[in-house]
Amino acid sequence: MDQLLRVMNFCVSRDGVAAGEAQSLEEPFGLPHPERLFGWAGATASWPMREDGGGSRGLDDYFTRDFARNIGAEIMGRNKFGPQRGPWEDLDWTGWWGDEPPFRTPVFVMTHHGRPSFSLSDTTFHFVDGDPATVLKQAREAARGQDVRLGGGVTTIREFLDADLVDTLHVAVAPLELGSGLRLWESPDELLDRFHREVVTGASGIAHHLFWRK
Amino acid sequence: MDQLLRVMNFCVSRDGVAAGEAQSLEEPFGLPHPERLFGWAGATASWPMREDGGGSRGLDDYFTRDFARNIGAEIMGRNKFGPQRGPWEDLDWTGWWGDEPPFRTPVFVMTHHGRPSFSLSDTTFHFVDGDPATVLKQAREAARGQDVRLGGGVTTIREFLDADLVDTLHVAVAPLELGSGLRLWESPDELLDRFHREVVTGASGIAHHLFWRK
Repeated sequence: MDQLLRVMNFCVSRDGVAAGEAQSLEEPFGLPHPERLFGWAGATASWPMREDGGGSRGLDDYFTRDFARNIGAEIMGRNKFGPQRGPWEDLDWTGWWGDEPPFRTPVFVMTHHGRPSFSLSDTTFHFVDGDPATVLKQAREAARGQDVRLGGGVTTIREFLDADLVDTLHVAVAPLELGSGLRLWESPDELLDRFHREVVTGASGIAHHLFWRK
Repeated sequence: MDQLLRVMNFCVSRDGVAAGEAQSLEEPFGLPHPERLFGWAGATASWPMREDGGGSRGLDDYFTRDFARNIGAEIMGRNKFGPQRGPWEDLDWTGWWGDEPPFRTPVFVMTHHGRPSFSLSDTTFHFVDGDPATVLKQAREAARGQDVRLGGGVTTIREFLDADLVDTLHVAVAPLELGSGLRLWESPDELLDRFHREVVTGASGIAHHLFWRK
């Protein structure tokens, strides 16, 4: 447990939906009005993409503030990196985040289709094909003793949960039902066989589910 | 607001008491069973003095985990540093924390009685005589762009509040009444003219009061 694998600030609806089924360039989350799930994070002072000096410093800010603390690498699925599927046809695509991605560490993008690593500002993207345990080993080495963030999307998180590789999860449950889409869980109780859980709800109405290994 | 002055993990009873009136070497907080106020912090995985690998990773851990994040200096009152009063008679006293103090930054101890600076591991203690604004200026320079933690005790925090120098406060209110002692406040509502507040209570029963400037 020296180097934790951590799910952080992962946003779902009350019925467990984290993304729609039809991701596109215009709708990265495949959801209408995704701010209904993610708006709480953007309202905080420590949101990584914030450029002004404003924002709240209450409970929700402790979660966004923790985003980079002691994190040395991120693992993400290809669908978090971009909307393309199959072999890379457009190597000009360098992610959703512009010239200054918020990760500032090595990022391991899981894909069966290789492409060369590249760097943007302090972030370097590597494209790796392997099972979760193999990719985690690579990410831990790159993290140099720090923890590894498991960035999502939902399919990737489920693969790592199925392989029992996740040490802690912070899942932010928004007070709305989406009905259809990609689900993290049918119920958060599914994780209680392996994890402790604490749920805390602040003024924003977001229920923060905090899980850590038993 | 680039370099915040932050009160963090400051523990009081429901009636606002943070310390007893009779501090001694045996009772640094001048309270019987001070663990009733502070025990929640020691139970977390990220408590700075923890040496084993255990501890909880729920809500309370986000607060202890935040202890060192982006903190470049601490300011404390003399009574947090030690039980002596008046001119220093025992320069062998180097604080309560042994050879590895948890601060790992410059620490400015406010006292009218000078003594030479000294270092223990990554922490350097300076002894400074000045009003809160002057000491804060020194601490901000030492913090090199990072925030400054206002470590207490209660008298010191009140001095900085009176001078309107505090940017954020996290006060952990334990569910017990102590009746007598040094009080941070008569009521937390006293701060609402200048601060936003959110209160969040987790499984431990501690009510975390989070204040940030309006």
